Amino acid sequence: MAVGHAPLPNFHPIAGVRIGVGSAGIKKPGRKDLVVFELCEGAQTTAVFTSNAFCAAPVMLAKRHLAESAPRYLLINTGNANAGTGRQGLDNAMRCCETLAQLGAVASEQVLPFSTGVIGEPLPVDKIVAGLPSALGNLSDNAWAEAAQGIMTTDTRPKGATMRLDIDGVAVHISGVSKGAGMIKPNMATMLGFVATDADIEPELLQRMLTAAANKSFNRITVDGDTSTNDACVLVATGRSGTPKFTQDNAELWRPFQEALDGLMQQLAHAIVRDAEGATKFVAVNVQGAAVLSEALDVAYTIAHSPLVKTALFASDPNWGRILAAVGRAGLQNLEVERINIYLNEVCIVEGGARAASYTEEAGQAVMDLEEITIRVDLGRGEVEDTVWTCDFSHEYVTINAEYRT
Amino acid sequence: MAVGHAPLPNFHPIAGVRIGVGSAGIKKPGRKDLVVFELCEGAQTTAVFTSNAFCAAPVMLAKRHLAESAPRYLLINTGNANAGTGRQGLDNAMRCCETLAQLGAVASEQVLPFSTGVIGEPLPVDKIVAGLPSALGNLSDNAWAEAAQGIMTTDTRPKGATMRLDIDGVAVHISGVSKGAGMIKPNMATMLGFVATDADIEPELLQRMLTAAANKSFNRITVDGDTSTNDACVLVATGRSGTPKFTQDNAELWRPFQEALDGLMQQLAHAIVRDAEGATKFVAVNVQGAAVLSEALDVAYTIAHSPLVKTALFASDPNWGRILAAVGRAGLQNLEVERINIYLNEVCIVEGGARAASYTEEAGQAVMDLEEITIRVDLGRGEVEDTVWTCDFSHEYVTINAEYRT
Repeated sequence: MAVGHAPLPNFHPIAGVRIGVGSAGIKKPGRKDLVVFELCEGAQTTAVFTSNAFCAAPVMLAKRHLAESAPRYLLINTGNANAGTGRQGLDNAMRCCETLAQLGAVASEQVLPFSTGVIGEPLPVDKIVAGLPSALGNLSDNAWAEAAQGIMTTDTRPKGATMRLDIDGVAVHISGVSKGAGMIKPNMATMLGFVATDADIEPELLQRMLTAAANKSFNRITVDGDTSTNDACVLVATGRSGTPKFTQDNAELWRPFQEALDGLMQQLAHAIVRDAEGATKFVAVNVQGAAVLSEALDVAYTIAHSPLVKTALFASDPNWGRILAAVGRAGLQNLEVERINIYLNEVCIVEGGARAASYTEEAGQAVMDLEEITIRVDLGRGEVEDTVWTCDFSHEYVTINAEYRT
Repeated sequence: MAVGHAPLPNFHPIAGVRIGVGSAGIKKPGRKDLVVFELCEGAQTTAVFTSNAFCAAPVMLAKRHLAESAPRYLLINTGNANAGTGRQGLDNAMRCCETLAQLGAVASEQVLPFSTGVIGEPLPVDKIVAGLPSALGNLSDNAWAEAAQGIMTTDTRPKGATMRLDIDGVAVHISGVSKGAGMIKPNMATMLGFVATDADIEPELLQRMLTAAANKSFNRITVDGDTSTNDACVLVATGRSGTPKFTQDNAELWRPFQEALDGLMQQLAHAIVRDAEGATKFVAVNVQGAAVLSEALDVAYTIAHSPLVKTALFASDPNWGRILAAVGRAGLQNLEVERINIYLNEVCIVEGGARAASYTEEAGQAVMDLEEITIRVDLGRGEVEDTVWTCDFSHEYVTINAEYRT
């Protein structure tokens, strides 16, 4: 059950990036559960990671390796998060990096590890080590679709996006994949996202670009409010496109690239919400008229996390009182309810803090029957606006998460 | 579906309080949906109300009336919350108060109105006005059980508690009822709670006593994190017991009473969690070793609100990684995960931030199979501790809240 039609695109290969997929039998025999990205020498890599204090062993190690060295490999396993595993977890993640480094003839710090799956169980490191040669054996320029498949866990469909744009008459490409369906309320990154481009970008700018794009995409989605221990999003720039290097000083050159990157990462993030566990609706929560950004986000996330709003969305029930109650408990100081208007798509449901005179149940019902809905709140306190994307809360969500480990 | 066996007690009547129940046909014909408490002259009344900025019309009016006058009647209707109803909502609540005041020959400020039910629909004030005479016609000293029934909405069973204690050789009684099953994350009060005693208590102390008891009971429960627009808890002291007046200066006299009140209100609050929409488990989340109270509560509520923890509880799945992930995202600054221990009842699951060496899946499973579970987190940062009570998240919750208005 996922919202909307979203086939994988025909990915543009990214010169300097090869991808190999293998089976280690981590959770289920035969499942593609290992993905290796090989990056060319000279590629610049940056990443954003979970803000969860209990971040997983691979997150700790990936951060350390990224600070120490220029990555040549990304190693992703599904089926086990290697989180809550203490010292042994770090040792296990390190052994995976060391093995891949040996096979690829690079230093072990040049491997960034990523894991996703159940928390708190020991990583089956022997299985992963045994599976690496086969993943390396099928490295290919053209395996983005296989990568999108290979990083899935409870996802019902693979997620990817690809773009081509011209910079000064030269073609620049961006391709990316993401995964995630539950435990989604990224804070600095999403479950897992891997994006690469052949543009040439100086390191500080690359980090700024990723942060900016994440704040319009992965950092604005929520399924259940549960920030994962393993969130990570990586952006690689191989520099093989032949365009001039993007620097802090030539923004006129790279601004179209930043816009394309924002759009591509938004596609990847929206794909996670559309495929969220049990989702039947794709919902944008847009808050306008806030005095500061934190107000807009507090109200948007309070609505997006409310189990009562989410079950009403599941039922296509225009029970807008639950939206109003969520706005009221979002913790804004001196909220003047008389200034507040609330809309379902273009239908005004609340005007000046009470039911709009023009509102009819039929008009509300017509919007709620749609698969894609925008809840818009105007706080009437200022000029700041932001949007968060979420989904509804269905029986299927409970089933999936009650039976996750069985 | 509710957790544990909880029959109504044999209520002690409270001298000076009479209760009448009636049918106004607000949502369903024939349902007992009106409750009137008549308070004797001289009774002291205090209350705590929702912190939701969108507080309902009856909440606004009850606050105003309480500030202006000594209440002689409490008027409760179910089936309609009279919230999000603007100016008309206030006028409607006022008309109900005026009608009851006329019938009872008191001033309209001496009536406190309370409403619970669906948000955003106009209060059917004519039906309520028409139903009041019958409710007044059956006023009785001994109708606490009927009151417990009469204030129910999605509750599957009535909730009440009663106590008798001796103060200086004189019998003092406390009786109370509560209601609520969803939209439960009270903040200064619960959905609705009405407690009365025949003790004689000076007004300032009465307010202090209620606040203290609410902070150990209604302000420590959560079902879905959704703070209602209509929460209210009222404490009435009629002074008819014959004990000396409780004042700020004779704490030795009233300390046992405060303890009894705390216990009674905890029973009423726990009854709401036990009867929470779709609940199959009653769960205490106890956080120890916090540096300050807000830390303990932030961690406890993050666990108690996590849909992933709650669905794992529903499935009796010892998926403790979800508890750990919730602790990690609770927003505590400089959290040292190596200091953290987590227990399911007496089973240590996390020790020093990672899976406890002694932990076995069987031991975790044995606890999760129970109907009543304590999740205990020791943060190892200080001496503060607090407890929040919650329930699991089941298919039934989704069903109830998806079909609430149908």
